[in-house]
Amino acid sequence: MKVIKGGVTSPKGFKANGFWAGVKKSGKPDLGLIASTVMCNAAAVFTRSSVKAAPIIICQKHIRGGKIQALIANSGNANCFTGEYGLTYAKKLTAIVAEMLGFSAENVLVMSTGIIGRPFPYEKFKEAVPKLVKGLNAAKGASFAKAIMTTDLKDKQIAVRLELDGKTVTIGGCAKGSGMIEPNMATMLACVTTDANISPAMLKEALLEAVDVSFNSITVDGCMSTNDMLSIMANGLAGNGLVSSKSAEYKLFVESLKVVCVKLARDIVADGEGASRFFEIRLAGAETKKQAKEVAMKIANSNLVKTADYTDNPNWGRVAAAIGACGTKAVETSIKISFSVKKNNIFINADIGLGTESATVYTCDLTREYIDINGKYN
Amino acid sequence: MKVIKGGVTSPKGFKANGFWAGVKKSGKPDLGLIASTVMCNAAAVFTRSSVKAAPIIICQKHIRGGKIQALIANSGNANCFTGEYGLTYAKKLTAIVAEMLGFSAENVLVMSTGIIGRPFPYEKFKEAVPKLVKGLNAAKGASFAKAIMTTDLKDKQIAVRLELDGKTVTIGGCAKGSGMIEPNMATMLACVTTDANISPAMLKEALLEAVDVSFNSITVDGCMSTNDMLSIMANGLAGNGLVSSKSAEYKLFVESLKVVCVKLARDIVADGEGASRFFEIRLAGAETKKQAKEVAMKIANSNLVKTADYTDNPNWGRVAAAIGACGTKAVETSIKISFSVKKNNIFINADIGLGTESATVYTCDLTREYIDINGKYN
Repeated sequence: MKVIKGGVTSPKGFKANGFWAGVKKSGKPDLGLIASTVMCNAAAVFTRSSVKAAPIIICQKHIRGGKIQALIANSGNANCFTGEYGLTYAKKLTAIVAEMLGFSAENVLVMSTGIIGRPFPYEKFKEAVPKLVKGLNAAKGASFAKAIMTTDLKDKQIAVRLELDGKTVTIGGCAKGSGMIEPNMATMLACVTTDANISPAMLKEALLEAVDVSFNSITVDGCMSTNDMLSIMANGLAGNGLVSSKSAEYKLFVESLKVVCVKLARDIVADGEGASRFFEIRLAGAETKKQAKEVAMKIANSNLVKTADYTDNPNWGRVAAAIGACGTKAVETSIKISFSVKKNNIFINADIGLGTESATVYTCDLTREYIDINGKYN
Repeated sequence: MKVIKGGVTSPKGFKANGFWAGVKKSGKPDLGLIASTVMCNAAAVFTRSSVKAAPIIICQKHIRGGKIQALIANSGNANCFTGEYGLTYAKKLTAIVAEMLGFSAENVLVMSTGIIGRPFPYEKFKEAVPKLVKGLNAAKGASFAKAIMTTDLKDKQIAVRLELDGKTVTIGGCAKGSGMIEPNMATMLACVTTDANISPAMLKEALLEAVDVSFNSITVDGCMSTNDMLSIMANGLAGNGLVSSKSAEYKLFVESLKVVCVKLARDIVADGEGASRFFEIRLAGAETKKQAKEVAMKIANSNLVKTADYTDNPNWGRVAAAIGACGTKAVETSIKISFSVKKNNIFINADIGLGTESATVYTCDLTREYIDINGKYN
């Protein structure tokens, strides 16, 4: 497996497009589309928020069939808390894309990100769809990646190449952050494509495995979003024999998918709102994996840990306080904490001395810029 | 019941003192003492952190006897993560106070607040104790209140007067904030004194009732401390008949104690690190009281809610997102959110439409100044 230059259109048979459809006042891209030349097996994970945006509700229905061929995404409007109206137009958006491309609305996913509670500007998006479809191109993966950005400073893309069953398989992905980022899926928008031939069941399994160590291991501000979603589309054009069990091929595919997802998740944190430092928190000595992640996340979500100055005096007391607040049996004598600092990367190693399980999570610092960005949202 | 000017020395028989003992580099007061002329029934609540500072461990032992006559407190050093050494000297501090005042170490409480993990400067405090004891005075309640301050900008004091059984009873209190403030007791240091004659069991009961709606209903930054503690000492000098059951007198006492605790808790939030706005969050429509408080606290701890600009466009979408992240059944159609803004006071009213229980919690905004204060801790 090796990392290559590219993104969602690197796997065979995927095209994309993205541009400004007139919604964002900034004039930056706000509408994007990914389509495969053939039908894909697909899987997705969604926000666990009980307040779900309209596109989430639509996608949860469409993904049940397991067959997806296109994904339309917009930024600039979350289409959340928009009632029946929002649901109707999220659905319509999938229908007009499907009609132009020659399949059914149930084969299309829709993602939205932006401010909650504003009327969904369906007409503007609708008018732009014909141009969006016509412009689909295998060279435009980056255009899609840019179209889903909100306060992100950089687009986030990656592609990897591996060999399965003697065939070259590619996995590509892109994601957007960068506020309202917390564990519990999907904490952002991310799209992964692959030309691997893999069954829907194994694709879902692989996605869950990869999400656990990537998107569900990051936090920017501890705020779960109403719109978070990650999807994967596998069109099988690589021509490998169907991956339909936990074979060696499956394992290689999962490891490669993890590389894609971890890279995108780390990019989201590094580009978190106002972020100037990247934290990698390795928590060891937990009784269970679940406890390891909970404690690591408590440290990662501590505003005191995130605001501390690590240049010449790492504040391990704040890490100890965060550990103490988790309700575990960890006490002063069982806890070990160490730091290492390399430029803007801070590694916090903590061992709580209760067991043998561990977890690694990622976060960024909390800065004056985060305050400014989130105070000036409109 | 009426609020009067005063603090911990307003009830009969209480004296206090406080001054700089040489620990804080700023030269601000860092050592304080409260003592009663007669033995008190006492109760206390402590941080639920598994990482407990030395003074917490000592106090948890001393409070078991239920008889306390003095309380020594220091700021500038948390005496936390200081091992056996810290425990030894926290205990010694209670012993030298007890010896000078003529009772036993078990009758003395000790509180500490400051940076975690630094050696406890016992010698400096020890040298200051004789002067501290000699200077005890009923007019020095404010000196004690100032001695426990860290990044607090204002001291926090209150006293109330009520009539129990035909006798005038006074309750006084003081507290310190202002970072590492979260629910789950005690989230800060607070000392309450009263001359009421009340049994240890009823005193503990009253304290728990009052704490629930005050100190356990506030958050500044969602960070639970290792040193949090609230104590109450009741010396009985008001001469009322012993309150030993849930009588009308008990109820009046509890209501008055709630006024004291809510005032101090609100003061802590209003003086939270970098705070420029005060939030009162009223959550209704919950299935249980516990759920009401959990959801209210999730809103109060949302960095996005705390950084939003409420001047001309309250961001209710962020409140809805926080509610969604709580794992309740609240959905878009069941949730109602309204705001009212009076100068720097923001009232958020949310109804999640699931039941009839409610809770009110308090917090402050998250500002650039919070970032600055917590980045420059040493």
